[in-house]
Amino acid sequence: MSNGDIFVGEVIGTAILILFGAGVCAAVTLRYSKARASGWIVIAFGWGFGVLAGAYTAAPLSGGQLNPAVTLGIAVDTGKWGKVWIYILGQLVGAMLGAVLAYLVYLAQFQANVRQSGAEGTDEEPTPTLGIFSTIPEIRNPVANLITEIIATIALVLPILAFGLTEGLGESGTLVLIVSLLVVGIGLSLGGPTGYAINPARDLGPRLVHAVLPIPNKGTSDWGYAWIPVVGPLVGGALAGLIYNVAF
Amino acid sequence: MSNGDIFVGEVIGTAILILFGAGVCAAVTLRYSKARASGWIVIAFGWGFGVLAGAYTAAPLSGGQLNPAVTLGIAVDTGKWGKVWIYILGQLVGAMLGAVLAYLVYLAQFQANVRQSGAEGTDEEPTPTLGIFSTIPEIRNPVANLITEIIATIALVLPILAFGLTEGLGESGTLVLIVSLLVVGIGLSLGGPTGYAINPARDLGPRLVHAVLPIPNKGTSDWGYAWIPVVGPLVGGALAGLIYNVAF
Amino acid sequence: MSNGDIFVGEVIGTAILILFGAGVCAAVTLRYSKARASGWIVIAFGWGFGVLAGAYTAAPLSGGQLNPAVTLGIAVDTGKWGKVWIYILGQLVGAMLGAVLAYLVYLAQFQANVRQSGAEGTDEEPTPTLGIFSTIPEIRNPVANLITEIIATIALVLPILAFGLTEGLGESGTLVLIVSLLVVGIGLSLGGPTGYAINPARDLGPRLVHAVLPIPNKGTSDWGYAWIPVVGPLVGGALAGLIYNVAF
Amino acid sequence: MSNGDIFVGEVIGTAILILFGAGVCAAVTLRYSKARASGWIVIAFGWGFGVLAGAYTAAPLSGGQLNPAVTLGIAVDTGKWGKVWIYILGQLVGAMLGAVLAYLVYLAQFQANVRQSGAEGTDEEPTPTLGIFSTIPEIRNPVANLITEIIATIALVLPILAFGLTEGLGESGTLVLIVSLLVVGIGLSLGGPTGYAINPARDLGPRLVHAVLPIPNKGTSDWGYAWIPVVGPLVGGALAGLIYNVAF
Repeated sequence: MSNGDIFVGEVIGTAILILFGAGVCAAVTLRYSKARASGWIVIAFGWGFGVLAGAYTAAPLSGGQLNPAVTLGIAVDTGKWGKVWIYILGQLVGAMLGAVLAYLVYLAQFQANVRQSGAEGTDEEPTPTLGIFSTIPEIRNPVANLITEIIATIALVLPILAFGLTEGLGESGTLVLIVSLLVVGIGLSLGGPTGYAINPARDLGPRLVHAVLPIPNKGTSDWGYAWIPVVGPLVGGALAGLIYNVAF
Repeated sequence: MSNGDIFVGEVIGTAILILFGAGVCAAVTLRYSKARASGWIVIAFGWGFGVLAGAYTAAPLSGGQLNPAVTLGIAVDTGKWGKVWIYILGQLVGAMLGAVLAYLVYLAQFQANVRQSGAEGTDEEPTPTLGIFSTIPEIRNPVANLITEIIATIALVLPILAFGLTEGLGESGTLVLIVSLLVVGIGLSLGGPTGYAINPARDLGPRLVHAVLPIPNKGTSDWGYAWIPVVGPLVGGALAGLIYNVAF
Repeated sequence: MSNGDIFVGEVIGTAILILFGAGVCAAVTLRYSKARASGWIVIAFGWGFGVLAGAYTAAPLSGGQLNPAVTLGIAVDTGKWGKVWIYILGQLVGAMLGAVLAYLVYLAQFQANVRQSGAEGTDEEPTPTLGIFSTIPEIRNPVANLITEIIATIALVLPILAFGLTEGLGESGTLVLIVSLLVVGIGLSLGGPTGYAINPARDLGPRLVHAVLPIPNKGTSDWGYAWIPVVGPLVGGALAGLIYNVAF
Repeated sequence: MSNGDIFVGEVIGTAILILFGAGVCAAVTLRYSKARASGWIVIAFGWGFGVLAGAYTAAPLSGGQLNPAVTLGIAVDTGKWGKVWIYILGQLVGAMLGAVLAYLVYLAQFQANVRQSGAEGTDEEPTPTLGIFSTIPEIRNPVANLITEIIATIALVLPILAFGLTEGLGESGTLVLIVSLLVVGIGLSLGGPTGYAINPARDLGPRLVHAVLPIPNKGTSDWGYAWIPVVGPLVGGALAGLIYNVAF
């Protein structure tokens, strides 16, 4: 695969992933969305099928890694580091593009996210928007939050390595399907404490977009927390590569 | 594939798709349905498995495109335009047939959709019925609604093209399964603002049926909005074909 | 396949199907079930994965048809009628066995299904039990109920025939998976009015068991409705065979 | 497969299974989890996709049995008993490791599981924690609980044997996917009365961890019930092996 194909593939694939992922968070969160308050099952399947769509689209170009933690885990396992930077650059650009696309899909909903008079004469406050773009922990505890992200990322990358996907994530339809359902499972089971970044690009890219876009009543971009969903998944991805090398 | 096979395949496949899709909207919406108010997860999986049923049934005859936006995207990519009209004609006829079938499945529920005395002596109004047949935006904003439909349709057609399905959507069970889960994902993630037409035949065919059928208390067929779920998906499908041609 | 293998396969497979299907209805309906009131999505996936379990288990012995309407549709299509009676006999015996197994799984719940004092001193009535075993229409209208069952069964059998499964439902894992998700889709989309029998054995066998078993407060077995979920699916299966023969 | 590979594979695979399974129970149960009270559908898919993740990861090393009841059923069917002890030892160690990992993922939530002031000045009691680790019956009735676990385990092991997976559970992606959806189905349909252990290691390992870990307000480890989710699944697994040997 040429550097250009890798870059374009990771940009397109990660953009699709984040379009679906930020999209489903907008769908469940924002006023005037038909899916409002439809629950955690919708969140988890929305992100998982975003992996399905993005990884399969990117597969012929770049193999569809879409996640620096996956790229790092593969590099630690195989010892091939030469193209890691292209993958990660493409993933970060793609994540930013995907966040912009999700914003455009829900443009009217974002514009309507203002204080409104609710039932019984009370005022309904605008919905906080950062959670649509990036992760926010339920309990702010750096050590615990890091542990959660590290273990959840190992639970993503170790199976992917064991599936024998290091050569190309997308060559078999069944394997991409299984990885996407694995991501659904991580969301359902391990997403409760931190919202499961498990992917540095997935969190950092949309956070940059959130900071820049002129979203009404957008609230804080919470940069104090931003390092955890970057460091945690990178540590988890590297550990998964080491475990795979030793155990398999 | 002969013109006759293509036409029959698209009619049957699109009819099954709309039978399931309009059916699940009726199931969740109408009084005296066991699935009433069962939520967005039911809507999204119902439409997705309608794609599964319709595309797989149509595959041996027509390849199972079932969507003018898919047909247009393939034509833009491949430059083969000769049979586009047969596909689209079959899709429109099939969508109308499917809407009639869904109406028949929920016949008793439609007939019972009249003003009734509810709890505590109040009257319960009839349920609006257009949303069972066609899409209605949550916020009526032509520019934003078009953007939503265009991006959501790109998110459908670009993966399908990348999956290498241009020669026949239904030849591999796994690929049809993945496309159907992709449609579930689009519903979960991108359906909040407009109800995700992403298919001109899916919206226009049932709207024509809604306008003609003698449904009690059916309300407006909302022709003022009808052009958006036709134009948006067609633009999205064509753009997906262009992006695929350039990037892949 | 020998007559003995066909009979044993259909008994085991249909018993597993009904164990899951009646089981999920008990799970959602009965007091003291962890899944109580968990909604239509649980019902639809429970039945669908019952098809998965039953059809795949039965496949090596009988092909895993598990449904007289499927057997009839295949016979109408292929003209081979010699073994139809063995299939249907096995399906009916299996459905009865499965209903007994589901009763045993929920034995303590059935025994606790008595009048109890509820919140605020009121009495809570026993839960009606027939809906765990057999289908009950939301609106009792023989013509509309028949139409619903006929169309829903065509939506099951026509895709199965088009999938090329007439030679053996279970030889490919992907195809069995797709059929099971098709059944999920039928439940989500077309199950609202009548509870989707779409299988004469699935309704008649458990109804016989319901009539015979000494279930506390079991209520009526509703024999006045029992002919509709037998006749409707048989008509639908035969029509699907005819449509397949003409169109494909 | 060497004894070392089998042991390591079963440890890793069962640890992943329990990480997801105990994780999803924590996600739905504990305060300050984004998935709190998200329902039975989340529980059932979380456990099922834990099987997917664990069995597929373990497949290249041990075949991914992850369950003494499956191991016993295969031994009864094939008559090969020599490595049964290694499988079961690995499964028990893995289940304990997985329970510790799930505890770490939800560390901040467990630490916050103390009496708190709730709405309107009332106190909210800590959430009982045993249900996150091990199963608890809704109605405590040893005979009925044993019957439930025996039948539910037959419904797991008999299909696995019929799927022809005795040689290695994980060699085909489709088969592992089907087994994981089978586990989803067992949860949806048969989990209502006892919470579906269907796996002695899944229940006993985490119960030992629950008894030892210093969890705040953890409550009883309920050793009086602990024999049922061990004996029931073992009996069910052995019966499934016998049925398979006779019928197939």
